[in-house]
Amino acid sequence: MSPIERSWGLSRRFLLSTLAGLTALPGMQLITAAQAQLPAGPAPQGPLSVDPLASWNEGPAKQAVLDFVRVTTDSSSPKFVPPEERIATFDQDGTLWVEHPIYSQLMYCLDRVPEAVSRHPELKYVPPFKTVLSGDREAIAKLSKHDLEIIAVTTLSGMTVDDFAAEVKKWLATAKDPRWKRLYTDLTYQPMQEIMSYFLANGYKTYFVTGGGQDFVRQYSERIYGVPPEQVVGSAGGTSFGYDKDGKPILTKDWHLLLNDDNAGKPEGIHMMIGRRPHAAFGNSTGDRQMLEYTGAGDGARLMMLVLHDDAQREYAYGPAQGLPDTKIGTFPPALYDEAKDKGWTVISMKNDWKRIFAFG
Amino acid sequence: MSPIERSWGLSRRFLLSTLAGLTALPGMQLITAAQAQLPAGPAPQGPLSVDPLASWNEGPAKQAVLDFVRVTTDSSSPKFVPPEERIATFDQDGTLWVEHPIYSQLMYCLDRVPEAVSRHPELKYVPPFKTVLSGDREAIAKLSKHDLEIIAVTTLSGMTVDDFAAEVKKWLATAKDPRWKRLYTDLTYQPMQEIMSYFLANGYKTYFVTGGGQDFVRQYSERIYGVPPEQVVGSAGGTSFGYDKDGKPILTKDWHLLLNDDNAGKPEGIHMMIGRRPHAAFGNSTGDRQMLEYTGAGDGARLMMLVLHDDAQREYAYGPAQGLPDTKIGTFPPALYDEAKDKGWTVISMKNDWKRIFAFG
Repeated sequence: MSPIERSWGLSRRFLLSTLAGLTALPGMQLITAAQAQLPAGPAPQGPLSVDPLASWNEGPAKQAVLDFVRVTTDSSSPKFVPPEERIATFDQDGTLWVEHPIYSQLMYCLDRVPEAVSRHPELKYVPPFKTVLSGDREAIAKLSKHDLEIIAVTTLSGMTVDDFAAEVKKWLATAKDPRWKRLYTDLTYQPMQEIMSYFLANGYKTYFVTGGGQDFVRQYSERIYGVPPEQVVGSAGGTSFGYDKDGKPILTKDWHLLLNDDNAGKPEGIHMMIGRRPHAAFGNSTGDRQMLEYTGAGDGARLMMLVLHDDAQREYAYGPAQGLPDTKIGTFPPALYDEAKDKGWTVISMKNDWKRIFAFG
Repeated sequence: MSPIERSWGLSRRFLLSTLAGLTALPGMQLITAAQAQLPAGPAPQGPLSVDPLASWNEGPAKQAVLDFVRVTTDSSSPKFVPPEERIATFDQDGTLWVEHPIYSQLMYCLDRVPEAVSRHPELKYVPPFKTVLSGDREAIAKLSKHDLEIIAVTTLSGMTVDDFAAEVKKWLATAKDPRWKRLYTDLTYQPMQEIMSYFLANGYKTYFVTGGGQDFVRQYSERIYGVPPEQVVGSAGGTSFGYDKDGKPILTKDWHLLLNDDNAGKPEGIHMMIGRRPHAAFGNSTGDRQMLEYTGAGDGARLMMLVLHDDAQREYAYGPAQGLPDTKIGTFPPALYDEAKDKGWTVISMKNDWKRIFAFG
């Protein structure tokens, strides 16, 4: 890990955005006066139905979920799991919502550059900030990984945790995905929402285990996914306790990276934040491999699933497993596919297993 | 923080044990063949009673708890707190169980020296380990803070998290406090157990926020206090994900200190692990000051309480607040007492507010 990576509150994966990813964007959406309405309550769960997984086609993936929940919650089953041990962990980007062309949180960081420059006016003349402020889309698309790291560190630290929370909420209420022209929080996968609800209804505690920033995800996890802030495990920068000018205690976000919650950092973060091994884990990329391995190494019933993005028409197609196009965002390499087959993990085909992708579909 | 402090999974406070503390001990209890029985289920809650705080004398401390719970759970009250925001945090050592003459976890570390030496035979000739192995109580009592740090680092890292958990559980089942000749887990304060149960019954999530080691406390928190592992915030060392010789994924405890959960580290740890500001916080020493300040800085109803050890007969007496004897373990200085009075925090007098100290009393 480079010193700059060590010092920011985001995972390495988060910043692996590519030129290709950025050029696909019609431009950044700076906060405007448009007053899009926050949806009230959790995302819609589809029409009332006795089928808890109504957005899933019949098949081995749906069946694996139903079987797992049945055997772990039936007290007469040898695979019964006591309620207090029912932990299910979910990667976010690419597993629960759209991660292409680039992570939503990185869009937030780019959108926050003007504010960061207002706090540090000297940055106006520094290349990556100057470039973003120019609005020159072609130049922005050419920003290096190092440039993006600097932008992330600057826009995600230096403010109180309360101010950060307010800014993220404000952004989420207006910023829209360029392809669907919808709020980012509308772009959650309906079939995965159903899995989370189904686990919750069966006594499981559902956790995020995301490479994304813990403080960022906590601003919408409860409203959108029913996951309270204390069940969000994510990449986390440190905070510093202090007092404001009126002597009021405050916590300020700093640059020190406490948890790089990706790859090996996922099981490490799970141990740190939860202290129990999950019984079920869901991911979609190489960054989720160790979490699934760690989950699968436990005794009794364990469920490991990976979402494969093989639906260019309804969402995106990338791998490069199964001959899908390569990507640097949410890579699913052939080796991971082989490991899944070898270890009995279930690969979910978006194209074949999901009746629909989004609640609004 | 010294480099050695930074590298171990315990708080600074944890090792502020003094010569006085060690000399007061009749010696270390190495694990013996004595097979003391683990008590089944949570600690006894006293005779059935309509009074949820039956071990409390009537007075301002008991009343403060009853009033707080009433106004925050009555939906018609302007101070009502929605269930999802009901977070109560508890310091452990000196607040929930006995911390004198030295912290129980430090006793564990001393008891584990022979095992550490068997893993690293060269340590047999190194002074602090050699001294502990000698069994020379006077020499052991003279160990410096730095010696104890080295012992803590060595005995709390280098093993898998599963092996560590098993060892702690084994130790807890046999090791006894020298004064009461009881398991350490028997030495919880019955009045505080009642508060935790009362909060739990009223929809609060109860959390440990302790300077003690997170992985240590998690081995008994659920059984003894009804606090599940995922609600234990404590000083935490890092872990490293890897594979054992058979290729099985494992997490190994390392020396890197992720969270020094004491003083300013308490609100920082609360933000990291919970992500919400508590509505109630309980402590007993200067290490809890920032947690109480942070709790009190929130809007609406907040309850801040400090246990004062002023009962030499039934437990211990130390301050030096209120003219009590000075101590380096769980210091309650006059300045903290003044701050409590100034800010409306409630100081609990063990002597006057508690009808009894222990469940076995």
